[in-house]
Amino acid sequence: MKTFNRVAIVGGTHGNEFSGVYLLKKWQSSPATIRRATFETETLFGNPNAHRDNKRYLDCDLNRQFLLHDLADPELGNYEQSRAKAINLQLGPKGNARTDLIIDLHNTTSNMGPTLILLKADAFNTQLAAYVAERMEDAVILFEDHCTVEEHFFLCSIADQGIIIEVGPQPQSVIRQDVLDWMEDMTSHILDFVELFNNNEVPELPDTISAYRYTETLKLPEDENGERIGMVHKNVQDADFTPLRNGDPIYTLFSGEEICWDGDYEAYPHFINEAAYYDNNLAMSLGKKVEIAVIKN
Amino acid sequence: MKTFNRVAIVGGTHGNEFSGVYLLKKWQSSPATIRRATFETETLFGNPNAHRDNKRYLDCDLNRQFLLHDLADPELGNYEQSRAKAINLQLGPKGNARTDLIIDLHNTTSNMGPTLILLKADAFNTQLAAYVAERMEDAVILFEDHCTVEEHFFLCSIADQGIIIEVGPQPQSVIRQDVLDWMEDMTSHILDFVELFNNNEVPELPDTISAYRYTETLKLPEDENGERIGMVHKNVQDADFTPLRNGDPIYTLFSGEEICWDGDYEAYPHFINEAAYYDNNLAMSLGKKVEIAVIKN
Repeated sequence: MKTFNRVAIVGGTHGNEFSGVYLLKKWQSSPATIRRATFETETLFGNPNAHRDNKRYLDCDLNRQFLLHDLADPELGNYEQSRAKAINLQLGPKGNARTDLIIDLHNTTSNMGPTLILLKADAFNTQLAAYVAERMEDAVILFEDHCTVEEHFFLCSIADQGIIIEVGPQPQSVIRQDVLDWMEDMTSHILDFVELFNNNEVPELPDTISAYRYTETLKLPEDENGERIGMVHKNVQDADFTPLRNGDPIYTLFSGEEICWDGDYEAYPHFINEAAYYDNNLAMSLGKKVEIAVIKN
Repeated sequence: MKTFNRVAIVGGTHGNEFSGVYLLKKWQSSPATIRRATFETETLFGNPNAHRDNKRYLDCDLNRQFLLHDLADPELGNYEQSRAKAINLQLGPKGNARTDLIIDLHNTTSNMGPTLILLKADAFNTQLAAYVAERMEDAVILFEDHCTVEEHFFLCSIADQGIIIEVGPQPQSVIRQDVLDWMEDMTSHILDFVELFNNNEVPELPDTISAYRYTETLKLPEDENGERIGMVHKNVQDADFTPLRNGDPIYTLFSGEEICWDGDYEAYPHFINEAAYYDNNLAMSLGKKVEIAVIKN
C-alpha cells in the first residue's frame, strides 16, 4: 500500500478567495495544527500577487494552467503561466511529483457548503470521502473523475493525489467565520485520515458513500453576439445539490421570460451563479447523484 | 409644496455591483417602465470603466467624491475624481442642481435585504419611507441623516433629494434574481410615490414608521501594524438589523479568542462584513432602531 510522505496545502490559488489565505497565516503561527507524525506537511501561497491586488488572477486563471503540455510550453509566459511552472518545480514535477498529496483550498460564491472535490474514485479517495463524510455532517462529496488526474488542468493535479476543498457561500474578498471553520475542519480530517492510512489504522468504513459526479457545465443565456441576456432562475439560486428535472425553470431572461431545463437525467447543479464563472458566461455545473463503492484494502 | 420635475436613476456607481447596471440595460429597452407623467426620468451609468474592469473603482471610490470642496478642487484628477466632476456637471451642480431627485442603485454583500437609505427625515422622505414600507414587506428604512445632504460625499447628494437603494446579499460581480427583483420593485414604488407627491395624491399614511438611524462604523480587529487579526463573529454574520447588546460576541480573532461588543446602547448592525469595506478594515455599521414621525403636509 502506498505511503504518503509529503503533503502540500495550497491557499490563495485564487487571490480573492480569502479562507485559504487566512488559514495559511494561522498555520504559520501554529504549525503544530497541521503537523502529523508520519508525513511532512508544507504550505504554499498559490497566487500572492493576485491576492495583493485583491483579484482572482492577474493574467489568467492559475488553476487552469497545469496541463503537461502547457507546463512544458516556454511560450506561455504571463504571470500565472510562470507561477504555474514555478509551483510545478516546487511541488512536482507533474507525472513524477515529490509531493504525494496536494490539498488546494478554494472558496465559491455558490451555496455548496464544505465540498470535498476528488479527482479519482480509488481506495484512498473513496475511503477518505467516507471518513470525512462520517465526521462532518455538512460535507458534500463531489467526484470530478471524468478524466484522468494527468488530464486535469488543476494545480492539485501536479501530485498523484490531488484534492480540492471548495467551501461556500462566501463572496469574493470576504472572510466568513462559518466558511473558515468548515475549511479548517475538513483539512484537519483529511490530515488525520492520511495519518491513519499511513499507519494502516483506518477505522471501519461503510461499503458505499453518497456522492455527486460531475457531468457538464451550463452557460448563461446569450444572444447571437455572446452578450448575456439572462440570469440563473431564482428557484435554482442557492439550491446547490438540489435535484433539477427536465422542465424545471433554470434561467430568467432580462425580458422576463423563463427558460426551462431540457435534460434527460436528474441533475444536481452546483457552482450555481459562481461569480468567477461570469468571465466565461458559465451558469453552473451539473452532476449526477451516485452511490460510490468504498474500495477497501 | 415642491414639485419634482427631473429624476435621475444611477446604476453602476460601483462597477462590480451588477443589479443597477442590468436594470439600466433593461430600462433602455423598455423605457416606459420608468416613465411617469409629471416628471422626466433619466438614467446614468455611474462608473462604466470600473464595470468594464469588473471592479468597484479604478482609482478611488466614486461614491465618496461628491463633497463641494472636492468637486471644486482641480488637483483631484484621477478617474473617479474626474468622473465625479462630469456627473456633477450633468446632474448638478451640487447646491443648485437641475436634478430634483437622484436614486442611486447599490448592492451589498451584507444580508440587508432591500434597504432604502434616506439622507433626511423631511416630509418627502418620511412619506416616501412609509409608502414604500407599506408596499414591500421586506423593505428596511435606514436614515443616514447624521449630517446635512450637502455634507454627504455620496453621488446622490448632488440633488436636494438623494436616495440610495441598497440591496443584498449579493456577492460582487454576480446577478441574483431575488436581489434584482427587489431593486426593481423598490425603484418602481419610489417613482410611483414621486408621481403621487407631484399630483398631491399621496394616500393616507401612518403617523410613524419603524426605521433605523446610522450611529457609527466599527473596524475589524487590527494589530499595532494595522494588520487584520480577526473577523466578524459567526453570530453576527448575516444578522443585519438584528439587535446587538453590550457583551454580545462581535469578532473572532484568528487566534480563536472572542471579542464582545462594549457599547452603551442597543445597536442594529448593518453592512455586516461588506466586501468593499475591507479596503479600510471596516467590519460593519451600527444604527439605532427609531420610530420616525411621518411629516404630513
